Amino acid sequence: MERKREKISVIGAGSWGTALAMVLADNGHEVRLWGHNPQQIEEINNNHSNEKYLPGVTLPEEVVGHSSLQTALENIDLILLAVPTKAIREVLKQIQEVQERPLTIVHVSKGIEPDTLMTISEMIEDEMEAELLKDVVVLSGPSHAEEVSRRFITTVTVSSKNMGAAERIQDLFINSYFRVYTNPDIVGVEIGGALKNIIALAAGITDGLGYGDNAKAALITRGLAEIARLGTKMGASPLTFSGLAGIGDLIVTCTSVHSRNWRAGNLLGKGQKLQEVLDNMGMVVEGVRTTKAAYQLAAKFEVKMPITTALHNVLFKDASPKDEVDSLMSRVKTHEMEDLANVLSSDQI
Amino acid sequence: MERKREKISVIGAGSWGTALAMVLADNGHEVRLWGHNPQQIEEINNNHSNEKYLPGVTLPEEVVGHSSLQTALENIDLILLAVPTKAIREVLKQIQEVQERPLTIVHVSKGIEPDTLMTISEMIEDEMEAELLKDVVVLSGPSHAEEVSRRFITTVTVSSKNMGAAERIQDLFINSYFRVYTNPDIVGVEIGGALKNIIALAAGITDGLGYGDNAKAALITRGLAEIARLGTKMGASPLTFSGLAGIGDLIVTCTSVHSRNWRAGNLLGKGQKLQEVLDNMGMVVEGVRTTKAAYQLAAKFEVKMPITTALHNVLFKDASPKDEVDSLMSRVKTHEMEDLANVLSSDQI
Repeated sequence: MERKREKISVIGAGSWGTALAMVLADNGHEVRLWGHNPQQIEEINNNHSNEKYLPGVTLPEEVVGHSSLQTALENIDLILLAVPTKAIREVLKQIQEVQERPLTIVHVSKGIEPDTLMTISEMIEDEMEAELLKDVVVLSGPSHAEEVSRRFITTVTVSSKNMGAAERIQDLFINSYFRVYTNPDIVGVEIGGALKNIIALAAGITDGLGYGDNAKAALITRGLAEIARLGTKMGASPLTFSGLAGIGDLIVTCTSVHSRNWRAGNLLGKGQKLQEVLDNMGMVVEGVRTTKAAYQLAAKFEVKMPITTALHNVLFKDASPKDEVDSLMSRVKTHEMEDLANVLSSDQI
Repeated sequence: MERKREKISVIGAGSWGTALAMVLADNGHEVRLWGHNPQQIEEINNNHSNEKYLPGVTLPEEVVGHSSLQTALENIDLILLAVPTKAIREVLKQIQEVQERPLTIVHVSKGIEPDTLMTISEMIEDEMEAELLKDVVVLSGPSHAEEVSRRFITTVTVSSKNMGAAERIQDLFINSYFRVYTNPDIVGVEIGGALKNIIALAAGITDGLGYGDNAKAALITRGLAEIARLGTKMGASPLTFSGLAGIGDLIVTCTSVHSRNWRAGNLLGKGQKLQEVLDNMGMVVEGVRTTKAAYQLAAKFEVKMPITTALHNVLFKDASPKDEVDSLMSRVKTHEMEDLANVLSSDQI
């Protein structure tokens, strides 16, 4: 395929940023991978590896590490933002100090900001000077970085308010193992990506409690309904939640051993306390922060979110995981369709 | 809970029939479990076990095995039909020879009859004398028998053309670990239950090929869209496919080690031929027969079903599993919403 060679800064050298930098390098682009840790950048440039985040993987030589934002951003065409949601505002502040011209930002983070209740793209619009920002594009979907870095077949969705921008990103990334679809529903894509981490934490808890696959499938099903109920109230299309950024991402996050949020939930289900779990993980567990935000969103939009509420009780009110799961499972509603119909006619809630 | 004690014949002493007989016995009903193999019935009555189908599980003494249909059906209130779809017509013929009065039949089978393209409830209506049949109720959802027999929390859906009959069955089964919901959409419930086995076979193939969790999640997502496309054309509500009998059952069947259809697909992906797989399994793999029927349904209703078609090629036309999966994954459609929108406005297809 003939493809325009673009100069791209990937900001964030965690597992996902690094894996996506590899895809872009495979596609012939000039890729600069920025990380704040000089030792890690040295490892990327000298050993072509990033052992902490992608153990055993060899990076293409075309992925060049940078620990200076200045050189990472010099004369580039595009920013790919791959940092934990908690760091986004701070990183965007630093970027703007050295950014030379208006650029499109692609973000691949999954979360909602507590208190402001902004999606990631809204945070980016809020934080960036208007004259430095062209478009915001989100890339989401069922995509463990570990598999992408091994060039396993993966499908993702890109979305933007400007579909032309989304299509440019589609062209940039698409190849034989990385299949990219577009979806104009940016609210749905971001809400689906963010909230699935809550359900993954809860699914990890049921697994940690030893409740089995039947209970977990019921939880995931209810979780999807709960995400869709909130999402449609926020203006998303219900269809998005049946797609890659909805059920696709939810399945992979709730059932794969690669999922950090599932693993964190699993430890909670086995009796560890939140702080203990976070200390043991050593990586960011986005679902914890997202639970706080989703709990606030449920109140704001007056949507019933029983799984989010149960998890909020476990994480922040020291409730017993077993009591919360048992109470979720014995809910009295008996007509399934009433529950589901709420997704499409959300004023019934 | 005060509950009317009913006399119930469970026809079929496989894993699912036996597990459901245990639930009914736990609820205080008189339960007769019929199987055609006298040794197995003897084991059930003498050892209170059914080792071939539920290894390590102790049955309640209230579950009484019968190898004679005559005694199994004498003076009963309800039939629970739990036989492989292939055996349903023959068993119904035998039942009618000894049946004394009109009865409601609850069925728990998952399949579509090739050639006639009937759902199980349609087959039952077709095969039974009208004066011997009160109502047909289907019970479906994410429910591995192995877990139900160990009293793990499980949620299922019951559906019938007569919702009064469905509610009676809900009352019969519901207890602290077996949560029963009603759904009036019997077409959706039966199509969801039947077709998920096709997707589970395909998911097993991708796992057998070593394609990873990202590819499997994409396949399950597309699989749900394909099931919903056909189901809505057949008159089902799209909401049902977002519920327990849709995505719930699909998830558990595609991701659990308990799933026969997934295991059969896994062996196919690893290079075994269909006959070899079926010989090795020693149990019925419903998805094979359902693939034939769904392939015919796709043609009849003019619905695109790429996963079903690919699996049909593998099972019946000796196509290479790898070639078929690779071709599925490289489909050219790039706008995800077009694919999903077809579910709700199926005339676009």
